[in-house]
Amino acid sequence: MVYGYMNRILRVDLSLKRFNVQKLDENIIKNYIGGYGIAGKILYDEVPHWSSPYDPENLLIFGTGPITGTQTPTASRYVVVTKSPLSGYFGDANAGGYFGPMMKWSGFDFIVFRGISKDPVYLYVNNGNVEIRSAKDYWGMNARETERALKKDLGDNEIKVAAIGQAGENLVRYAAIMNEEAGRAAARLGVGAVMGSKKLKAVVVKGDMKIPVADPDNLKKVSNEIIKFQMEDPGVKTTRDGGTPSFMTFGWQTGDTPSYNWNDEEYGEYDVNKVAWPGEYEKILKGHRACYFCTVSCRRIMPGYSYGKYTVEDGAEGVEYETLDMFGPMTGIDDIKAIGVANELANLYGIDTISLGATIAFAMEAYEKGIIDKNITDGIDLRFGNAEAFIEMIEKIAFRKGFGNILAEGSRRAGLIIGNGAEKLSMSVKGVEIAAHDPRAFQGGSVHYAATPTGGRHMEGYTVGPEIMGVVRPDVHLISPDEIKKIGPQSLEKKALIVKRQEDFWALLNAMGMCIFTEDVPAYPNEHVYFDIFKYVTGIPLTLEEGMKAGERIFNLKKMFNVKHGATREDDRLPERLYRSPNKRAGGTVAIDSSFLEEYYEVRGWDRKSGIPTEKKLKELDLI
Amino acid sequence: MVYGYMNRILRVDLSLKRFNVQKLDENIIKNYIGGYGIAGKILYDEVPHWSSPYDPENLLIFGTGPITGTQTPTASRYVVVTKSPLSGYFGDANAGGYFGPMMKWSGFDFIVFRGISKDPVYLYVNNGNVEIRSAKDYWGMNARETERALKKDLGDNEIKVAAIGQAGENLVRYAAIMNEEAGRAAARLGVGAVMGSKKLKAVVVKGDMKIPVADPDNLKKVSNEIIKFQMEDPGVKTTRDGGTPSFMTFGWQTGDTPSYNWNDEEYGEYDVNKVAWPGEYEKILKGHRACYFCTVSCRRIMPGYSYGKYTVEDGAEGVEYETLDMFGPMTGIDDIKAIGVANELANLYGIDTISLGATIAFAMEAYEKGIIDKNITDGIDLRFGNAEAFIEMIEKIAFRKGFGNILAEGSRRAGLIIGNGAEKLSMSVKGVEIAAHDPRAFQGGSVHYAATPTGGRHMEGYTVGPEIMGVVRPDVHLISPDEIKKIGPQSLEKKALIVKRQEDFWALLNAMGMCIFTEDVPAYPNEHVYFDIFKYVTGIPLTLEEGMKAGERIFNLKKMFNVKHGATREDDRLPERLYRSPNKRAGGTVAIDSSFLEEYYEVRGWDRKSGIPTEKKLKELDLI
Repeated sequence: MVYGYMNRILRVDLSLKRFNVQKLDENIIKNYIGGYGIAGKILYDEVPHWSSPYDPENLLIFGTGPITGTQTPTASRYVVVTKSPLSGYFGDANAGGYFGPMMKWSGFDFIVFRGISKDPVYLYVNNGNVEIRSAKDYWGMNARETERALKKDLGDNEIKVAAIGQAGENLVRYAAIMNEEAGRAAARLGVGAVMGSKKLKAVVVKGDMKIPVADPDNLKKVSNEIIKFQMEDPGVKTTRDGGTPSFMTFGWQTGDTPSYNWNDEEYGEYDVNKVAWPGEYEKILKGHRACYFCTVSCRRIMPGYSYGKYTVEDGAEGVEYETLDMFGPMTGIDDIKAIGVANELANLYGIDTISLGATIAFAMEAYEKGIIDKNITDGIDLRFGNAEAFIEMIEKIAFRKGFGNILAEGSRRAGLIIGNGAEKLSMSVKGVEIAAHDPRAFQGGSVHYAATPTGGRHMEGYTVGPEIMGVVRPDVHLISPDEIKKIGPQSLEKKALIVKRQEDFWALLNAMGMCIFTEDVPAYPNEHVYFDIFKYVTGIPLTLEEGMKAGERIFNLKKMFNVKHGATREDDRLPERLYRSPNKRAGGTVAIDSSFLEEYYEVRGWDRKSGIPTEKKLKELDLI
Repeated sequence: MVYGYMNRILRVDLSLKRFNVQKLDENIIKNYIGGYGIAGKILYDEVPHWSSPYDPENLLIFGTGPITGTQTPTASRYVVVTKSPLSGYFGDANAGGYFGPMMKWSGFDFIVFRGISKDPVYLYVNNGNVEIRSAKDYWGMNARETERALKKDLGDNEIKVAAIGQAGENLVRYAAIMNEEAGRAAARLGVGAVMGSKKLKAVVVKGDMKIPVADPDNLKKVSNEIIKFQMEDPGVKTTRDGGTPSFMTFGWQTGDTPSYNWNDEEYGEYDVNKVAWPGEYEKILKGHRACYFCTVSCRRIMPGYSYGKYTVEDGAEGVEYETLDMFGPMTGIDDIKAIGVANELANLYGIDTISLGATIAFAMEAYEKGIIDKNITDGIDLRFGNAEAFIEMIEKIAFRKGFGNILAEGSRRAGLIIGNGAEKLSMSVKGVEIAAHDPRAFQGGSVHYAATPTGGRHMEGYTVGPEIMGVVRPDVHLISPDEIKKIGPQSLEKKALIVKRQEDFWALLNAMGMCIFTEDVPAYPNEHVYFDIFKYVTGIPLTLEEGMKAGERIFNLKKMFNVKHGATREDDRLPERLYRSPNKRAGGTVAIDSSFLEEYYEVRGWDRKSGIPTEKKLKELDLI
């Protein structure tokens, strides 16, 4: 008996409109747990290295973990895995809400799409029954309209929907997949663009199939303890009150929060108080919202309001920290209402707000520098701080109109198209725009951002927690809070190992189906609770070190996907600006020279020079 | 003073509708000569390894060689170079006619396209003047219609046009670029699909700018000698009389000409006399046609005729040998009139006839084996020999209708989409369908097909000439006609070196602007004449061994492009069938085991195991 899993993979061939069902292999469960792990293994095995992301043989895999959808706090995630059109390498994204749990209850742990449909379709899954249906009537709708129209047409408000908006349809290279009526996003690395390339408008799931749980009584007990912790812990409380933006003031003060395309005061003096919480941000805040079975409840929602010709719907999802920085300080815009509107538009069109804000900020710098002018921007005055121009560009990008057609390619490609030095202004790693945490402020980040297989990510093991916030899990990071405090964010002492352990641990949590935010807040009392939960759900006793090994395996699998698809050490590099221009708010620091990567590679058991996992390491991890 | 070159590269940015002009670098001329060489160097330097073929940063480069367009026999070629959507690696194709010479007379040696236009455009070049113009009125037209409409609208019958048909517009992955009113094709590796992805319908060139020639008197003298040879040589005469199909009977007898998706009599007993020349093939032959300044004049043309609902225009280009095999024996079709119609359609739509015939033959085998049925083929009875089904599939592929949408992906991807063993029926190397010369009949071919960077090609150095036909160039192949006759096509003695030398030599000839057919017929009296011509045109004395070194550099550059873009030794492999199923007409032989590649790698100065050029070799060739 397999506990925790529905034990079924749905395989959908969109080219020939067929599907079939597979069992989960027990070895895969043991080695790859779930989420990015199992989905990544399928991707690695089946997508040829000569494939392009929009080719029919690329896969788009929706996945869950064994904990997803069980009665465990913060285990609401689904993942999407594909070969990324932004990086050309391993692509993944994930989101909370209710889609992930419902997908499991509908009967499947994983849904693997291959092929390309000729006409728009959506997938309908109801308690194990599967249909590929026409989505002609929904093509052209935004993500919220799509979900509501499906609910109406199916006469069923219980369905959960993951859909693309117009950005995914138009192959905006950083389009997201949205669920919760455009409230949650599996945002990064262009997973929504791949969905658009397959002409798959939406995945609809519904069901009440039971997830088998090995020890429900003990699960309930430990869950209740976590809930109690989450209700009482002051850190969790702050997060609940302010949402992710509650980090903003601290981030700004420590130099972690970047501005003006990572140039800071060169282009203006940003007043972070105009957008921070508590304070001005509250102008566009109303209530709270929670994902499935989550007592952190970090989601804030907006009241309805108008801004020029734009409106925000009452109850629309609020602005997250990453979006707040990318739409605020990063572009020099300090009008919180404009930021709220831009957030609403990005969610409706279905665009990753990090890459979106960063790409427009990139264009703003090119504009300020005179590399582009109004002849290229369709007459738009694209200077930093111009909120109107920013919002107009979002629409142009979503529909690939005029200059939006260039920015829809992401900052790396846009830089190559524009030329004349613009290519140096793209603040991306592996083509993936860097999230709103400045590695010049915490040198573990310099290593992680450069080395992590999915580029400029902040949810794959960045070390803001241990390095800046003092969030230390002694048995994960192998260091005490006091000790790391002494080392500080700029010293590299023990950092290679801390980064590695953080990456492996987070890979494991994702594979389990956990929200990584549990470690970022942190919202779990300690690092051992996950293993209790895992045991009670799956019946499999997993020691922390066994779990870390599974996480390491998953991390190395992603790395090996990249190597197989042509990545070399040159891909492990931050934008030059971070190595050269000091971050004044962080104390005038720059990112540590990339030669330090060699220490990290060595800690990982990768070749020091090439950064490629050694045969020994791959054998140890059963990867060859 | 630079002789032989116009000394100008035109750079066209289709995304932002701009262009500029560059000088040719003298070092590039010296090292890479022209054609694939110089175009390949630009491609290698500028297309990032993480790029997909249809991405804006991929380049589409039209190029010529220094001899192209001079008064030299058979120097009519233009090349097109790009990252191939069929292989994912180095992609090139070339064609004769008058486009190449006219492109040079219009003022440019190379035209480099980057970016993607939002709306269909064509490029108009007239004596150095450049315009990017709307092609809205031509989008949807076939290649012949496009060229004629442009001539009419421009009121100018002197223009030369390279255009895509509907196949390129619809991203048929093996779409060709057509010139001479759909009479000539830069056909292979999907260059037309990349042109379609850029929304570039046509390139129009016109001009009477003079190519500077270093020693016109001596050039005239040697040209006259070649012309005399071409008029008198019996081999050239046969080629002039029968066109390339004059090879067919000999090819069939030696087992070089494959049939029934390389299964031969398993699916029928093909009567090659029904399509061979002299004989039945003459039913659809009328006159002759020559490319610019060519006295070989191998092009045969067809009389107008009807076949069911289809018609062939009077004077349409005849069926070449490769097409004749791919549309005839390969599909089991023996109705020469049907083959002529299919040829006409493929040319009008702009499709590579090799990949087209091979891909449909692949599907026919899948159908015969029951892997696909009428539910998948849209009701078409896709058995071997069904001419009507074959023609219908061509139309479906060009417009990506129904099952044609699957076959438009090429046999490798179609195999993956169909599954159930279909993937083993794709007779391709690196995704490129193998040309109509069976390597089981000449083992140098087993090495060349497996190793050459552009997959299943016959014009990059295959050794049918020295191994089967007795065409030996002693100073190129370093062997005498008697000696190779003794060795024979099945022994591997000296073959690694012969293959290497043939590849390097042909790379050089292409770079010069020569039609490779001069070596295949052969239509040049000996291997030294090329160097006389080169000297008289460019003023650069080049010894044969210096030229071979340049060819080797170009060949290694293409290889390194592949390595940079993720290729490994696993890509150097023939389809399993060729290693296992004997070719009876060749005497029951199979292709030599791929372990022999190691000898070839070593001769090339590549690592024996990985097949990657060693640092030493790259340094020797100034490639690093």
